[in-house]
Order: sequence, then structure tokens, then C-alpha cells
Amino acid sequence: MKNILIVGCGLIGSSVLRAVRSRKISRNIYIYEKSKKNISVIKKLKIGCKIISKFNNASNNFDLIILCTPMSQYQNVITKINKYISSKTIVTDVGSTKETSSKQVRKLLNKNKIWIPSHPITGSEVSGAEHGEKNLFKNKWCILIKEKKTKKKYLSKLRIFWKKLGSKVIIMNSKKHDIVFSMTSHLPHLIAYNLVKTATDFEKQKKYELIKYSAGGLRDFSRIAASNEIMWRDVFFSNQKNIISAINLFIKNLNLFKKNIKKRENKKLIKKLVNSKKVRKQIIQLKQDINRPDFGR
Amino acid sequence: MKNILIVGCGLIGSSVLRAVRSRKISRNIYIYEKSKKNISVIKKLKIGCKIISKFNNASNNFDLIILCTPMSQYQNVITKINKYISSKTIVTDVGSTKETSSKQVRKLLNKNKIWIPSHPITGSEVSGAEHGEKNLFKNKWCILIKEKKTKKKYLSKLRIFWKKLGSKVIIMNSKKHDIVFSMTSHLPHLIAYNLVKTATDFEKQKKYELIKYSAGGLRDFSRIAASNEIMWRDVFFSNQKNIISAINLFIKNLNLFKKNIKKRENKKLIKKLVNSKKVRKQIIQLKQDINRPDFGR
Repeated sequence: MKNILIVGCGLIGSSVLRAVRSRKISRNIYIYEKSKKNISVIKKLKIGCKIISKFNNASNNFDLIILCTPMSQYQNVITKINKYISSKTIVTDVGSTKETSSKQVRKLLNKNKIWIPSHPITGSEVSGAEHGEKNLFKNKWCILIKEKKTKKKYLSKLRIFWKKLGSKVIIMNSKKHDIVFSMTSHLPHLIAYNLVKTATDFEKQKKYELIKYSAGGLRDFSRIAASNEIMWRDVFFSNQKNIISAINLFIKNLNLFKKNIKKRENKKLIKKLVNSKKVRKQIIQLKQDINRPDFGR
Repeated sequence: MKNILIVGCGLIGSSVLRAVRSRKISRNIYIYEKSKKNISVIKKLKIGCKIISKFNNASNNFDLIILCTPMSQYQNVITKINKYISSKTIVTDVGSTKETSSKQVRKLLNKNKIWIPSHPITGSEVSGAEHGEKNLFKNKWCILIKEKKTKKKYLSKLRIFWKKLGSKVIIMNSKKHDIVFSMTSHLPHLIAYNLVKTATDFEKQKKYELIKYSAGGLRDFSRIAASNEIMWRDVFFSNQKNIISAINLFIKNLNLFKKNIKKRENKKLIKKLVNSKKVRKQIIQLKQDINRPDFGR
């Protein structure tokens, strides 16, 4: 590739930047970023990229544009860059939900423009360009969204791009994507937030020090619940329907769990606990486990 | 100390064994263990301890007896060892709940015997003697239970024992203990189990592969939900009342969270997410965080 534009250069955007540069994937890398803090971090990297602040100065000959802003910024961004997108530019993103955001972008983009959403399953509880890593995508899943009208030629190009970054690429439609990740990512994050909220409410009620003893389990949830609030607000709102179904199923199961405890239903409870262990084994067998917590989004 | 008896030599018991031996805390260490697998592991360690299978052969001159079996075994164990406990022997345990189990042991123990429960806040999702570590208790909290009748002299001796193992000792009563840990440990474990259960139910319903994508958050919960089922059944049953209150508070908050999403209550949602991050900061400031997940129990 000759020209890549990265829009938004926080944790993910700056990781794309580092990965593309270190693997020599594109001759020129353009960065569109507003945060002064992120710009200062990127400049210090001395990585060889052009930071642009307005689009009228920019080349309109991008091979690839990657939206790495929070999803709630897409509308704003697309409106600004629409006329700089050629009919050969692949526009993609890294957002964690797909159905709503993808439709929104499709509507805004001029006709015949190429839009293929991506979702690299990686991330961290920390945000900002300073936390970017050139190997953030290595050996991680990256989901590409294929709808009826998606052209194979460009899908294939985008797949090669992510593979060069080290990702294992999977293709699915946006509907399936949002259902799968409502359960493997969105619900777990929401539950972690809710647990931390419940613990702080409880601490106030009882006037006990709790956080001090968080090593008993709460600590590991708090890591997940420290993720970026704008990103997660966007996820919760844009995958509303699937997340609400997931919450409902979770509450139904939680009430059954409570009943098992209340009525001392030994066999049922043991079965539940043993089955969870089997899932853990599956995860280890699938080589999805690692030593350091490194959850995706 | 001259003689220590460790009853049950799995993950925690064998860690006590290794810690006591490596720190030269007791001249003689006796192990009471039924599992052939654990016995074989301990023998291979060549650590210098006496494995006893019946109590009539044992010395009745123990300075300290530590119950490291699941809590549901306490009744059985105490009945067997009651007559080998002298009036100077400190009897303690490592169980994760205190109010019910402590009363039960107190009732069973012959009068004037010294019973001071302990709860080292450490553990792992793996069980068995082979996973024991001599530094498992180092820099970890250890809660000692003080009730009205607890004699200071023996409490002080027990505190010194855990300090020698590297623990930071905290003293509280069993009621407070069970309330605090219902929130910082028991609820998080239960929630992790429930999340894994919900994901597997969902996988069956939708016929989607889910576990494959568990890196998005589910994976980190599955680690917590892989803990020993007998231990956790005992915890859930013995701290029934506090855990049910904790579940109720959690469900109340979860319904509010659902409402925030459903009605797109932006400000309320953002506030919730930002507050969680603050708790994370507190945990890091309290030096309760570590790189590798190492939740307690």
C-alpha cells in the first residue's frame, strides 16, 4: 500500500500505526488526531508519519482509511472526509459493535464507496497513544464484516492487511457478530462494571473498608471495569437489543443460582460448578488463555 | 514450634507445608491426608514431614493444628482428632467463610480447647498438592477471627505464625468477615460462574461457537469460574444469608444498568463507568493489583 490514513490515534490507532510502520506495510501513514496529548506522544515516537489537522490539505489518494475513534465520532468523521475518499479507498474501522454503526456509516458514505468494518479482538483497560503496542494484533482474532454487497476483491485486500499485522482473520455478518460479542465481551464488561458499582454501594451502606480486601476476586473484575467509558457507552447503546437479551438471560440464571443456594440444592449446584470448569478447559485447549490478563473489547 | 499438624494437603495445605519447612517454623510437621495423589506428590517433595493415616499413632502434643480440608469436612475431622488436642494446642483453619463453620467447630471441640479461625486471602483456580507454593502467603492478607472469648495470648501466637509465612495479618470478628468477603470474593466468584453458565446456555440456544471468541472478556471470568467446586459449594452454603443479600443488591443494580441502556440515559451511564475507574485507581494505590491474576478465595 502507498497511503494509509488512521483516524484517531489512541490505544488502538497508535498500535495500528506502530504495527504498520514496523512491518513496512505502507509507504506513507497519515494520522488525523485532535488530542494534543496523543499528538505529542506520536511525535516523540519519531516513527515517520504525517499528522494532519484538516482534510483539505490531505492527499485524497488513500488506499485504506481506518477509523479508530469512539463509534459515536463516526458520523462526524465521515462527514468531514467523505469527499477525500476515492472509489478505490477501503474504509474500515475497529469498533466493537457492527450492526448499527455499520448501517450508519453506509448511509453517510457517498455511493460506491467501499466500507468493510473490522473488529480486532484486543485491547486493554488503559487508553491513550502512549499505551499502543506494535504487536497488539499479533495472534489475535480480527473479525471482518461481510454483507451481501461486500466485494470479494476488497475483502481479500483487507484480510491481507490484518494478516500482515499478525491477526487471525474470521469473516461473519454484522448481525452474527453483534450476537456473539454481546455474550463474550459486552455482557462480561457490563457485569464487571455492575459488580464494582455493587461493591461501592455496599461499602457506603455498611461503612466497611472493602477495596482493601479486593484480592479475593473483586480486583480482577475491577481491571475489566476500568476500560474507557466513552467506548463502552457507545458499545452499550449501539448493541442495545442483544445486550438487553444477554442481561435477561444472566438474571434468569442468577435467580436460579440463588434458589440453589437458598434451598441447598447440592447436586444442582455442584453440576453447575463442574460444568464451568469444562469451559475453562475448552478455552485452554483452544489456546485462548494467556498468563497476563489481556481481554479484548 | 515443635509440632504442627496439617489436616488436608491440597493447594493450601501443601503450601503451608512448604512455607513452614522453608522458613524453619516447626521442628516436626505432621500431615493428615487421604488422597493418594496428594500423598504421592508430598512424598516426592522429600521435604521432611510425617504422613499419618490414623490418629491413634499420632503425637498428641501439637502446638498448632491447621484444617486445610473443605469446610464440609470439619465435622468429620474434629470428631476424629478431638482427643489428640491438648489444652495448649491452637486449632485453626483456612476456610473462606467463618460464622457458621466456626460455631460448628466450637460446638464439636471439647471444652477449653483453643479455636481461632484463619483465612489467608490467596488461592488459585487450580487445586491439588502439586500446585502448592512456599510463597503463596507472602504479602497476602490473612484474617484472624477474634470473638469475645478469644484469648489474646493464643491470638498473638497465631498472628506470629502467619507473619512468619509472610502474611499481613488483620483481625476481625466472624460476622464482619463474612459480610466483607460476601462482596469482595463470594459474589465475584458466583457472578463468574453465572456468566460462564449463561454463555454456555446461549451457545446451545444460538448454535454459535462462542468460546473461541472468549478473549473479549469471558476468558478472564472463566479463570475465576474454574475454581474447586467442593470448596465453593461449601462457601455458598455456609455464607448463604450474606451471599443472597449481595445477589439481591447486584440484581437491583443490574436492572438499573439495563434501564440506563434501554432509555439511553447518557449522563447516568457515563457516571457509572467513570466511578468504576476510580475504584480501579484505589486498588492500584493500595498495591492490591498484580500483573498475573492471582485471586484469593
